[in-house]
Amino acid sequence: MAAARQRLATIDEYADRLRAGDRATLARAITLIESARPEHMAQAQELLQRLLPYTGKAHRIGITGVPGVGKSTLIDQLGMDLVEQGHKVAVLAVDPTSTRSGGSILGDKTRMVRLAQSRNAFIRPSPTSGTLGGVARKTRETMALVEAAGFDIVIVETVGVGQSEVAVAGMVDFFLVLLLAGGGDDLQGIKRGIIEIADMIAITKADGDNIARAKKAAAIYQGALSIIAPESPTWAPPVLTISSQENRGLEKLWAKILEHKDLMTASGEFQARRGAQAVDWMRDLLQQRLLAALQSDAAIAKRLHELEGDVRAGRRTPALAVDELVALMGLGVRA
Amino acid sequence: MAAARQRLATIDEYADRLRAGDRATLARAITLIESARPEHMAQAQELLQRLLPYTGKAHRIGITGVPGVGKSTLIDQLGMDLVEQGHKVAVLAVDPTSTRSGGSILGDKTRMVRLAQSRNAFIRPSPTSGTLGGVARKTRETMALVEAAGFDIVIVETVGVGQSEVAVAGMVDFFLVLLLAGGGDDLQGIKRGIIEIADMIAITKADGDNIARAKKAAAIYQGALSIIAPESPTWAPPVLTISSQENRGLEKLWAKILEHKDLMTASGEFQARRGAQAVDWMRDLLQQRLLAALQSDAAIAKRLHELEGDVRAGRRTPALAVDELVALMGLGVRA
Repeated sequence: MAAARQRLATIDEYADRLRAGDRATLARAITLIESARPEHMAQAQELLQRLLPYTGKAHRIGITGVPGVGKSTLIDQLGMDLVEQGHKVAVLAVDPTSTRSGGSILGDKTRMVRLAQSRNAFIRPSPTSGTLGGVARKTRETMALVEAAGFDIVIVETVGVGQSEVAVAGMVDFFLVLLLAGGGDDLQGIKRGIIEIADMIAITKADGDNIARAKKAAAIYQGALSIIAPESPTWAPPVLTISSQENRGLEKLWAKILEHKDLMTASGEFQARRGAQAVDWMRDLLQQRLLAALQSDAAIAKRLHELEGDVRAGRRTPALAVDELVALMGLGVRA
Repeated sequence: MAAARQRLATIDEYADRLRAGDRATLARAITLIESARPEHMAQAQELLQRLLPYTGKAHRIGITGVPGVGKSTLIDQLGMDLVEQGHKVAVLAVDPTSTRSGGSILGDKTRMVRLAQSRNAFIRPSPTSGTLGGVARKTRETMALVEAAGFDIVIVETVGVGQSEVAVAGMVDFFLVLLLAGGGDDLQGIKRGIIEIADMIAITKADGDNIARAKKAAAIYQGALSIIAPESPTWAPPVLTISSQENRGLEKLWAKILEHKDLMTASGEFQARRGAQAVDWMRDLLQQRLLAALQSDAAIAKRLHELEGDVRAGRRTPALAVDELVALMGLGVRA
């Protein structure tokens, strides 16, 4: 009881210092989030619940694009503009390929030099984890921490490996897709699934010889977007051209992001989207935990693997495979 | 033991008569599939497992489009062409809005008059069920039955309510999207998520005054498709114009569907896609069953609902909500 009260006091202190803006406490809290040790995980969840009322006040922007499209340059320039306007900017990253030894190409402070040196900015590399689900969870939790610490703009970047864009789009208010104009007539081509979660597309490197190509690409992508029924009647995703290097188009880009926030707030969709994201995440977590419970039994995990092979090869119907697994788990209920 | 042996004999008889082409047995087997009574469900699963080796030989085509786009006319005309070529054609439907009392607008034999009268065709309205998952399951199982009964072409139609296109695309070899040209400059607009699961788009009613508009629409949709990275390097989804009424374009449409099958079979993707679909379906079913087990306890179901409300309103973190539910279920494993 005394130990619990002492730990509670520590978590309260943590929370207070973090909210007061102590950078070292924030970093330690994030490390706690990223730890795989059970006692750390429990403390992390307590801290997050305690800080929950102080989260949600930031504007969350996701940015994706292939390596070389100019994400770091854009974030550095845009981030500095926002800091100069008085904002506190945090930059997080979702990179499922990042490993403890190999690092990640995202959240690279050497490529966001000015922002990395600003006292009103905070850059954190992607958490490492075995799965996208794990990285997404830690990023969401880190976002809550930086929001409670007073950062009012949170940028989450990703490179677009696997389903990472979908994961990031599910945790931000606005999802920006950066594309290259490409050489000649061949456009980069949008990865499947991206065209529909984009709140805006920006063609980068619209400078020098490339301006005409960039504008042509923008027109083609705008045409493609215009035939897809938008998710909301309030917002038709626009296509812009920008040059981070020459700092052109960034004002308009940010103005569009603010316009989106104003319109969606007025219609109530801003909060509704956040609520839906939180519930979707809860359902994802629940599915992950149920599946983990299933696989925690080595015999069941083995049988699951074998049955998937049988089903894939057409030797067993999916329904009977699931019947067997559910019976092995001792859950007799038929859906 | 004797009763089990007798029931086994009955199921063997069912299977034999169904495979021999007895239409009444097929209809009774489908009714067994659609029944909600536990003893019927068990028998249905046995029958399906027994027939499994005799399934898989049909070519499965999904067709979607809004009411009025001309699905029934196309299926009637195309179906008759295929029957005349010696095929046996089954037409199924996925309509989550269909009810026992209200019926469904799909699988309407009065709108596929010629096909409905052909001895080598079989048309079945959508199963009724509380959920899309239930309708999808019964349709997949009905598909297995008609394949075992000797139908070598199975068409599954849907109107595009909710996620029904995604459900149908997940059970067919080829997914065809029908669109109208629209009046003037306003195109119909493709529902989000559809542009990426389409193996082909066909603009319907390309006849009379509407031909120019149809061709223009086709060009615009083709432009949109061309900037999306295709799922397979083997197939770039084409856009055609057709007129079911004047029977124009249907030969080319079917030729494209066959071309897709030939190319994907040669590359191995045809079978790979089916295997992946079966495993995805198994995982879907498993998730549905785990969730059903959770909700079979009224107290847990109630708490789940309350916690979703808390999470949506930002009063509780998703992770802690899931922790509580998992503890209530007695599954202590932390993912």
